[in-house]
Amino acid sequence: MNDRIRIGIVGYGNIGRGTELAISQNEDMELVGIFTRREPDLLDTKSNVIHISNMLDFKDKIDVMILCGGSAKDLGEQVPMTSKYFNTVDSFDNHGKIPEYFDKINNIALKSNKLSLISAGWDPGLFSLARLLGKSILPNGRNYTFWGKGISQGHSDAIRKIKGVKDGVQYTIPCEEILKKVKNCEDVNIPSCKMHKRICYIVCEDGEDLVRIENEIKSMPNYFADYDTIVNFISEKELKKNHNKMPHGGFVIQTGTTKSNARHKIEFNLALDSNPEFTSSVLVAYARAVHKMALEGKKGAITIFDIPLGYLSSKTGEQLRRELL
Amino acid sequence: MNDRIRIGIVGYGNIGRGTELAISQNEDMELVGIFTRREPDLLDTKSNVIHISNMLDFKDKIDVMILCGGSAKDLGEQVPMTSKYFNTVDSFDNHGKIPEYFDKINNIALKSNKLSLISAGWDPGLFSLARLLGKSILPNGRNYTFWGKGISQGHSDAIRKIKGVKDGVQYTIPCEEILKKVKNCEDVNIPSCKMHKRICYIVCEDGEDLVRIENEIKSMPNYFADYDTIVNFISEKELKKNHNKMPHGGFVIQTGTTKSNARHKIEFNLALDSNPEFTSSVLVAYARAVHKMALEGKKGAITIFDIPLGYLSSKTGEQLRRELL
Repeated sequence: MNDRIRIGIVGYGNIGRGTELAISQNEDMELVGIFTRREPDLLDTKSNVIHISNMLDFKDKIDVMILCGGSAKDLGEQVPMTSKYFNTVDSFDNHGKIPEYFDKINNIALKSNKLSLISAGWDPGLFSLARLLGKSILPNGRNYTFWGKGISQGHSDAIRKIKGVKDGVQYTIPCEEILKKVKNCEDVNIPSCKMHKRICYIVCEDGEDLVRIENEIKSMPNYFADYDTIVNFISEKELKKNHNKMPHGGFVIQTGTTKSNARHKIEFNLALDSNPEFTSSVLVAYARAVHKMALEGKKGAITIFDIPLGYLSSKTGEQLRRELL
Repeated sequence: MNDRIRIGIVGYGNIGRGTELAISQNEDMELVGIFTRREPDLLDTKSNVIHISNMLDFKDKIDVMILCGGSAKDLGEQVPMTSKYFNTVDSFDNHGKIPEYFDKINNIALKSNKLSLISAGWDPGLFSLARLLGKSILPNGRNYTFWGKGISQGHSDAIRKIKGVKDGVQYTIPCEEILKKVKNCEDVNIPSCKMHKRICYIVCEDGEDLVRIENEIKSMPNYFADYDTIVNFISEKELKKNHNKMPHGGFVIQTGTTKSNARHKIEFNLALDSNPEFTSSVLVAYARAVHKMALEGKKGAITIFDIPLGYLSSKTGEQLRRELL
């Protein structure tokens, strides 16, 4: 089938592997290749693997490149390079730097006549859509985002940097009682740190002072100090057995009143067994949209706010109106 | 402020009144007038009321007309007439007739160079978006729509036509145990009639045979026969006191697995004190989108699938990227 959407993957970490899996679930797509900085033979996959330095050989053979590296370093280098030659999708999630990143990619893609969707995924991404929808429909209201239960990579990294900590993970968990109040349309006005708990599972080096480690975690500014934080010390075996998954999820809830004082709630929530595999599934659906919009001549940088949701589907507008509306 | 979006309302029932209220909550909009088939002086409102026969006097004074009549008769007559001269938004909700209705309005609006959004609201509308999103992101999965708890006008009307029934309402309610299974990502494959219960509150004429009435309701094909239906007979006073509101809501849930068999759930749910006021709030936000798209030169008929969600907001793309992404 030559009319399938031809996808390339750049980077083969958790998101890259998830994207490879997600493409195989969409019959209108094919994976042309995985581009890596590593030695191609070293990647454990049956897909076609190409060294990233040979990317330009695929200039006319790929419709959309999905950039699967991390926001901290990879995407900032690889997306500018890739959007010179390809339509792109990425999951840049450094919220504070999005405006600057958008402008940079927009300039490049406008020059190359390509289309680049930045910051797709679920947050930023689907959660952003839910926030926008809630605030636009119920302007007299309040919007809440709860994250979890899920592993926060940033917080897990922070724990692991503490002296004497061998390994560890951190779960972000919404406070049940606050979540319940919000769902009941009660007016809750507290900072995000009071809406979440943090639970840590820590493996220590032998002979370390557990009290010191617990105190260092609980007093860490920004990360833990303002939160209800629980620290559990466990064995390495237990960590590997019970905490080797990457679940996540959360809730975006808009509550508000219409002018007669009728109360309304709009809720969007996710429960994910695998954060990277779900994120990848979002990227793949949005790659379809990017392909369609690029065919229509759209170029530059866009975000999920700019995409009609119908473009996510492989069905025609007529089918969607008949089957889903 | 002359740069506010100028809105007209056609029809002044529950949705028309809700739209009037919703416009007052959006500072970038103004209500130019309410168009009615009735004698304008008879409408109980402080807004400007105009007889519908004078609509053409407002040809250049209104950016978007929101059509607030019923799908059974009003919209089929009024939208074709209005879309000859105005951009329009309507909530046509007869799912089976949407394709035909779309084609009809599309032809008219293409000729008049106007833009007509059909079938906005929450179902069809926000629920349709949630179905599309779920199916596009988790193609290996199942999609469920639960309605309620809420009053179904169609079923309430059906009850009231039974001989001996003076008045009555019908609540559609999701089956708790099925909803719980679906939320737990269990694979549930049953028809919609087994996912919902129907509870009726009936006021009878004096001396009627309650057993006959209950049997007539419970055996009514399509409406009740396949459902777990509960019939309660109550006094007229109790009906007026406890069942005079129009709450509604429901759940759209997509569950599915990614290729490694990780399970995921995408859930969208609404809980609404007033179905018509919420529906109106959706129509008003979408009127903003129609105005923006019309300014960009878009014409013909569209559905919510064709609208980038960013257009729902009064904020610029730059603001949205900075504040909401």
